[in-house]
Formats: sequence, structure tokens, C-alpha cells
Amino acid sequence: MMSTDLPVLEIVTIGDELLRGDVADGNSVWLGRRLSAAGISIALRTTVGDDDAAIRAAIEGALRRSGAVLCTGGLGPTSDDRTRPVVAALYGRELRLDERVLVDIRDRFGRRGLEMPVINRTQAEVPAGARVFRNPAGTAPGLALDEPGLGLTVLLPGVPTEVRALFDDGVLEFLRSRWRDRLGTVHTAVLRTTDIAESALYERVRDLVALAAPARVAFLPSVSGVDVRLTLARADAAEGSRSRLDGTLALFRERLAGFVYASDDRDLAELVGDALRHRGLMLAVAESCTAGLLAKRLTDGSGSSDYFDGGVISYSDAAKQRWLGVRQETLARHGAVSEATALEMVTGVCHATGSPCGVAITGIAGPGGGSSAKPVGTVWIGIRTPAGARARLFRFGGSRIEIRERAAQAALRMLQLALAVDGHSHAVE
Amino acid sequence: MMSTDLPVLEIVTIGDELLRGDVADGNSVWLGRRLSAAGISIALRTTVGDDDAAIRAAIEGALRRSGAVLCTGGLGPTSDDRTRPVVAALYGRELRLDERVLVDIRDRFGRRGLEMPVINRTQAEVPAGARVFRNPAGTAPGLALDEPGLGLTVLLPGVPTEVRALFDDGVLEFLRSRWRDRLGTVHTAVLRTTDIAESALYERVRDLVALAAPARVAFLPSVSGVDVRLTLARADAAEGSRSRLDGTLALFRERLAGFVYASDDRDLAELVGDALRHRGLMLAVAESCTAGLLAKRLTDGSGSSDYFDGGVISYSDAAKQRWLGVRQETLARHGAVSEATALEMVTGVCHATGSPCGVAITGIAGPGGGSSAKPVGTVWIGIRTPAGARARLFRFGGSRIEIRERAAQAALRMLQLALAVDGHSHAVE
Repeated sequence: MMSTDLPVLEIVTIGDELLRGDVADGNSVWLGRRLSAAGISIALRTTVGDDDAAIRAAIEGALRRSGAVLCTGGLGPTSDDRTRPVVAALYGRELRLDERVLVDIRDRFGRRGLEMPVINRTQAEVPAGARVFRNPAGTAPGLALDEPGLGLTVLLPGVPTEVRALFDDGVLEFLRSRWRDRLGTVHTAVLRTTDIAESALYERVRDLVALAAPARVAFLPSVSGVDVRLTLARADAAEGSRSRLDGTLALFRERLAGFVYASDDRDLAELVGDALRHRGLMLAVAESCTAGLLAKRLTDGSGSSDYFDGGVISYSDAAKQRWLGVRQETLARHGAVSEATALEMVTGVCHATGSPCGVAITGIAGPGGGSSAKPVGTVWIGIRTPAGARARLFRFGGSRIEIRERAAQAALRMLQLALAVDGHSHAVE
Repeated sequence: MMSTDLPVLEIVTIGDELLRGDVADGNSVWLGRRLSAAGISIALRTTVGDDDAAIRAAIEGALRRSGAVLCTGGLGPTSDDRTRPVVAALYGRELRLDERVLVDIRDRFGRRGLEMPVINRTQAEVPAGARVFRNPAGTAPGLALDEPGLGLTVLLPGVPTEVRALFDDGVLEFLRSRWRDRLGTVHTAVLRTTDIAESALYERVRDLVALAAPARVAFLPSVSGVDVRLTLARADAAEGSRSRLDGTLALFRERLAGFVYASDDRDLAELVGDALRHRGLMLAVAESCTAGLLAKRLTDGSGSSDYFDGGVISYSDAAKQRWLGVRQETLARHGAVSEATALEMVTGVCHATGSPCGVAITGIAGPGGGSSAKPVGTVWIGIRTPAGARARLFRFGGSRIEIRERAAQAALRMLQLALAVDGHSHAVE
């Protein structure tokens, strides 16, 4: 409902399991990003159960308000998949067997040496006159129905890999060509911050929010930090406005110096990986309370073996001694959650692996194990780069899961800063 | 929209960032589960941007259709938080400063040794006559407005920890007492399966779906496997129907023997943890392609140090030799992704830690690194229990992230089965 003339559509996601929270609606997140980036605005999102009347009402409402709707889910072969017949009825079309789709489905099973189960045949029945998008990742094809009186309905299955494949392989291009004359540019800019609370951040920049107009400023807090996002949509994107946006962004950046870790949507683990790769440095980790979470983040992206050597999950004191060479005396005198232990852990893992860079995390993620001196949320993080080793104490709030996430993020941020200072080469805000 | 007389409400989640996919709507998942478990049915969920007209239309629509709506988001202190004034206007109420709320907010900052920022004062302004729920986890209170002509609107902030605290500390009880006379029992039963595809699973049980009526059967595929969920809502919950549901469940269980890992909502990592704790066994892990993901899952729950010792992230060949004692000859002859390496890894990590149980994962998560003999998705998993060691080859499909998730799940399943056979004590389907 932004005041622009950008193409607008609504999203309808279908499935009892989504309403009940049995599964998270990851498709909406992914589609939201892709559509926004393409300059297509999402006016509204509706989630309905596997119920014919509810599905029909949601799609009709979306078409009435916005003239275009993209649906996910309910195209599977089982009895609770209702979307195809409902939409066929709404558009007054018959369901007809599409031989080409049937061949695709049979081939798909055939490639794995299997007969097509009889029930998958229904997935080849498509509303007459529908545009069919072949599914490279699954059996249900994507479908589009477009009619002057009603508007555009696009149907995608609910399986995330299939949504992505169908959207990128055909649906996005189809939407682009339908709206070719109206697609404009959406300028967005983002500053990703960490180590500062939302309200403290807001106080620093509140006067800039009005100054940013016509760009809209949003503050997006998450467990990893707060993202500040500026958006300038087409109607406002007059000449010179991009450079004004850049100017405003520079002001935000100045006010938030020391907290900004990215000026784009990338994850901090990816940026740290790039910095390591850029300098040809290997990294090893020693994780206690995070127990693998940091290593998982560092290896979520492909090619991480360029800079990631491996590490140790030193959950027990014995593991800290055995693999990292932490001294019994250090553990006895300072405890497992201490500066001395964090430093011995990081030194130990670098020594064992021969890696010039290391990170060690030791803390109390809770809910048990806290004390008045070291309450739940107390975390020591040690890092090592060619310039030396250091450790920092954090007191994180939140649940066990959140404390672990915050600790991993904080460790990455310490590394990023150390590598930047160290290297004089990799830009850090 | 189920044919029951259960209390019904709609959920409205508010925020441009949700539509654009900048953040996932985790609150909807959590609230969906909690409300469903309490016997409150969610008819519809709408997500709108930070726009007064859109917020008002969404809430009005929900009230008109369902008479009750629970909103999250837009209660923060910043300029893009619009929910409070919009709902006050909808109910024709003024916003008034609530002194008790103001004291709560001041105290919250005070406990951290901080002055309350001026902007947080707006969070103490509540619609006249609203019921206020004190927020134990943040600054924005929960609010409820209830009026015969309009219906019930409950407002919660968008921060997940605050939603949870407010809901569990007051809002759920408030909803329960409002609907006391209509709250019935919802019988649900679930079988969580893994290692079988959705359509293969459906073929095994399709005739049971009709037999299960009036219970509804849903199939929920995810990267961890397929959940089969039976739901019997109040209107159908006549005498004897619970036992009929149990009988139907037994039939499903029989057909799906070998694939069911849980008969409740618990995660497989938690079940494996319980099995280990029950038998007093410690576990160590050696992870290559999953790089910490399995250890993270095993330690997501509190108390995991009862059974989890730690492990090694042996991302490089050098790490496999150094920490796990994998022989150079084995790596040269069979490769890092092989039965022999998986077995040496698991033996090595058990030996190093003195743990009787171990698991090792080595594979090709992609997108690079595959070959025709060992394509992306090839994963060898080795496990060890007091009864001995074994390894199994998997060929997983999907993206890098999915292959890693599937490998961790498969490793846990192998452990679960081995511990059950081994122990003759822990029930496995």
C-alpha cells in the first residue's frame, strides 16, 4: 500500500499446517525478497487452511483489491491439496489432463528408476487455458490464469525448492513481461548493525528519518542485530533522488559508526569468509556453549574450505584439555567461562591446526548453570589473527537459543573488526 | 474454517519487513502452535505493511469475519510503529498515558543502569479502557480491546521473546476465560517419519485417510521428513472418538513401520538425547560436511552436557588425521567420502573422547566438489554404540543447506535405531 504506481500483487499461502504453526512459511520470505528486488510490491499476504471456501475467498479478495495474486501450496497429490480445482472453478475452467506435464512427471520418477505412483497423475490435470510452467525440481507444475474481468492468479506448489526453481525459471520472467511498462526501479539501501539495541540506535538517528523522505526508513531488529533499511520506490525515484538517498545513507553510516557490519544484505559469516579468503588466511574454531553453531554459519556458503580448517566442539572440560591444551590449573583457578580459558582455547586451536586465525567461545547459555558472579548469558569470546589474540566479555540476554545466536554473531564481528584493522585492506564501516 | 464450534480468531501480523521477506514471521508459527493446542482455531492469517489504512482494513476484516483478532507488531517506539493509534481510532478511544506502564518501562531501563530514552514514553500511551498486559521481557505492553459491536482485538509487540512472555503470562489465560464455555478438547496425534518420500508414504496409507474420518489427516513434508497429523476437533469429539483416533493411529503406525521416529512433536535430537541419558551413555561427534550442525542440534536443548561430550569439525583432511587418527592411506585409497573414512572417523572420535557412542558424517554438500562416482549429495555416515560400529551410504537431494540438514537427521535416526536395538529399552516405532 505504498503510494507508488509499482506493480502490486498479493500473496496467498495455503495449508492448515501454516495456520497451526506446524511449519514456517519460508516461501513468503523468499518470494517477498525476490518480488521486492524486482520492483513488484506486495500489498498483502493471506494464509488460509486447506478449505475450498477459504481458499476461494482469499483469492477473490486479493484479486478484487490488487488484481493479481500469487499462491503457494495445495498442489500436491494428496487429498488435502485443494488449490487446483478451486481456482479452476473460480475462473470457470475445466481441469484437463496435460500430456506434456504427465510425461514430465513420469520422467521424473523414471530417472530415479521408479514407476510413477497413480496418485501423481492428478498433478497433470490443469485448468483449461492455463499457462503451464514446467517444474524442474518436483512434480507439480506452476500455473497461471489471467482474465480481464478477474485478474491474474499464479499457482505454485508449497515445497520451497520447487517454488524457487519455478519462480526463477519462468514465473518471474512472466510477471516482468506482463508488467513491462510499469516496472520501475526501487532503490533500497541497508546498513546492518550489531552490538547496539534498537532504541539506542533509533535515538542516534531519529532526526535523520524525516530527512530521508521521500525514502522510507525501517528498523528491523533480529537476534543478530538491527538492520536499517531505506527504500525509495518508483514514484519517488525522480532524478537525483538516488544520489540523495546515498547522501542520507552516508549520514546514517556516520552516526552508527562502530556498529555497521554490512552495507548490503549479506550475512556476517559470509563477509568474514570473504575477508579471510581475500587475505589468504585460514580459520579454526573452538566452541563450547555454541557447540558447532559458529562453524555451521561459517560453512553455510559454498567454497568455505578456502578459509575454514575445522575445529573443536569442546563441550566438556576434558575436551578443552585434550584437544586445545587448556591447562587444568586455568580451569581450576578461573573456571571454564573466563578470559584465561577463552584465550587458551583460541591459542590451542590455532596451534593444533596451524591456522593463523582462530575464535573461541565459552559461556553459559542456560537455562541452568548460572551463578551470581557468572549469570546465564555470560560469554567470553577469544579471537586470534596475525596481529595477536584478545578476548572480550559479553552478557547476552534472551533464551538459550538467542544467547547462542548472539554469541556466534559477536564472535564474527570481533573477527571482522580485527581482520580489517589488521589488514588495512578490507572495508569495514 | 473447520466445521466445529471451537473459538475462532484471526491473526494479523504487521510490518513492511514481513511482506518484503526481510524477516521471517516466527511469531505466527509460535502463536499458531499455542492457540491450536489450547483449542482455539485460527481461521485466517493476514500480513500487512506499516500503513494505517492497510492495518485498519485488515483488523476490520478479521473482526467482521471472525469476531476476534490477535495482532503482532507495530508497537515499538519508532516512527514506523503504527498499530496503537490505528486501533484506538477504530474503537473510537483516545490514547492516554498509563502511569503504571511508564513506571514499568522506566524500571526496565533502570535495572540496566540506563535512563529511559524519551521516545519510549509513547509506549506507555494506551487506548482508553484497554486491558493492559505487563511485558516482562520488553517495553511495549500487550493490549486488549473488546466491544460488543466490534469484537476482540489483542495487540502484542513484534519481538518474539516479548510475544511469548506476554502470551504465556496473561493473554492465553485472558482468551481462555473469555471463551471458557466454548473451549473443548482438540485431539491430535502425530507420527513423525523420516527416510521416506511424501508420495511413497501416501501410497502406503491412502486408504486409511477416509477411514480416519471425522479426524482430518494432514501430511507435512519438511527437510527432516514427513509428519502425519490426525486432528479431531470438538464438534467431532463424541464419546469413543478418542479411542477410535488411537485405533486409526495404530493402523498408520503399522503401515509406516521403520520410518516413524516420534509419536509426538519432539525433535529427533531430543529423543536421541533422552535415549542416551536413559542409558547413561556419552556421545561424541566428528562432522565434516555438516560442520557443527549435528552438534548444534544435539545441544539446542538444555541439559545436553548429560550426554554430549563434544567433538571435532574435521573439515579438512588434515583435521581428520590430526584429531581423529584417520590414516593417510585410507584417505588416499578410498577418499574422504567413503565407508572406510566414516568408520575411522567415528572410531577415532570415540577413542579420543572415551565416549562409548559416536557419529561421523562425511559427504559432499555441494554445489561444487561432486563427481560422477560421488555426486553432490553423497554422504557416508558412521555410528558407534556399545554394540559396534556401522556405516551407511546416503544420496541426498536438494540444496547445500538441505543436504546438510538431511545428513544430520539421518545420522540421528541411525543412532536412535542402534540405541533401541542395542538397549531393548527405549521404544522406537
